[in-house]
Amino acid sequence: MAMKLHGLVGSNATFRSMVALIEKDLDFEFVPVDFAAREHKTPQYLARNPFGQVPAFEDGDLKLFESRAISKYVAETYADKGTNLTFNDSKKLAIQTVWMEVEGQKFDPASAKLVWELALKPIFGQTTDDLVVAEFEQKLSQVLDVYERRLTESKFLGGDKFTLADLYHLPNIHYLMATKAKSLFHARPHVGAWCEDILSRPAWLKVVAMLPK
Amino acid sequence: MAMKLHGLVGSNATFRSMVALIEKDLDFEFVPVDFAAREHKTPQYLARNPFGQVPAFEDGDLKLFESRAISKYVAETYADKGTNLTFNDSKKLAIQTVWMEVEGQKFDPASAKLVWELALKPIFGQTTDDLVVAEFEQKLSQVLDVYERRLTESKFLGGDKFTLADLYHLPNIHYLMATKAKSLFHARPHVGAWCEDILSRPAWLKVVAMLPK
Repeated sequence: MAMKLHGLVGSNATFRSMVALIEKDLDFEFVPVDFAAREHKTPQYLARNPFGQVPAFEDGDLKLFESRAISKYVAETYADKGTNLTFNDSKKLAIQTVWMEVEGQKFDPASAKLVWELALKPIFGQTTDDLVVAEFEQKLSQVLDVYERRLTESKFLGGDKFTLADLYHLPNIHYLMATKAKSLFHARPHVGAWCEDILSRPAWLKVVAMLPK
Repeated sequence: MAMKLHGLVGSNATFRSMVALIEKDLDFEFVPVDFAAREHKTPQYLARNPFGQVPAFEDGDLKLFESRAISKYVAETYADKGTNLTFNDSKKLAIQTVWMEVEGQKFDPASAKLVWELALKPIFGQTTDDLVVAEFEQKLSQVLDVYERRLTESKFLGGDKFTLADLYHLPNIHYLMATKAKSLFHARPHVGAWCEDILSRPAWLKVVAMLPK
């Protein structure tokens, strides 16, 4: 039975799992969730993701949700397929894990709010809240100061190769690159170069190609 | 060289790593960080944790930060010591990982704000913001509704045994049990029983014993 990724084109979390599946060169079926019909609140869908959110994932009889957990599962379970997205050495893996946690605990809370205010609200005809933007640009700047120092000593966040620690960042960075927050990344040379590098990966370009032109 | 945990007694994040070290029955030195003297902003400390936060961890020449990454490292590296905090089976581990992510992405954002407003602000002589409390009690209730259903089908969040997925929750639940938010947990029978169970673990009682009486 083929793997299935239930999600929404354009959703950060859906794209976070999808890019991992593509990096791993895995065959999967993408199953769009019909938000307009409130499919995500049906009992069938809630059995896949009890929070009624995207994505949800199936590999045979195994059902998973949470985008990072899905990405981690495919990276570890299909270690020999596609790109190796983790370190095998336990100390290197521990450091990669630190930066995976930094993404979830520091980068995402700051950047997801900016994605909403600067990239998504205009699409939905809502008004950007400039005070919120200023507050979260400040938070994101503090995170990116740490990233700039880290990327001075290490080509990627998790170590000397591209791993899940970098991959987790892709959707939010992609959206912010089309907003004024882009300057926060490019004001820091190592961060700017890292963004260019990871955003140009073929797997990510395949994900972005799904977006409406 | 003994392991060292640099942190602050009472800090949620410090306690999250500490309880893992104690569950794993590992010898470690606890090194208090002197916040009053702003030790956490010194170059020496920033080399351990670039965000200037607690905890930071050393195991020989390996330096880690982020409380969940530290807990995960000790659980995986010292698999044969103390309590086994992870599943070996890859599918069970994937499901445990889902609930570890749920804690970081859903439970912690809702509960940490309530810990601050209800448990810590009074200690620091600050005024609790009732509007914020109402907003985050609502968010936490939605998360706990999902937990109640999960704990109806599974004794612990990650599966049929206590794992990191449960352990990550301990510090925030501990603080909220001394506040009016306790009722949110106990209004849900399986959640209430799970809280009692994990809070009574000997390793957690050793952590709590460090708090001033």
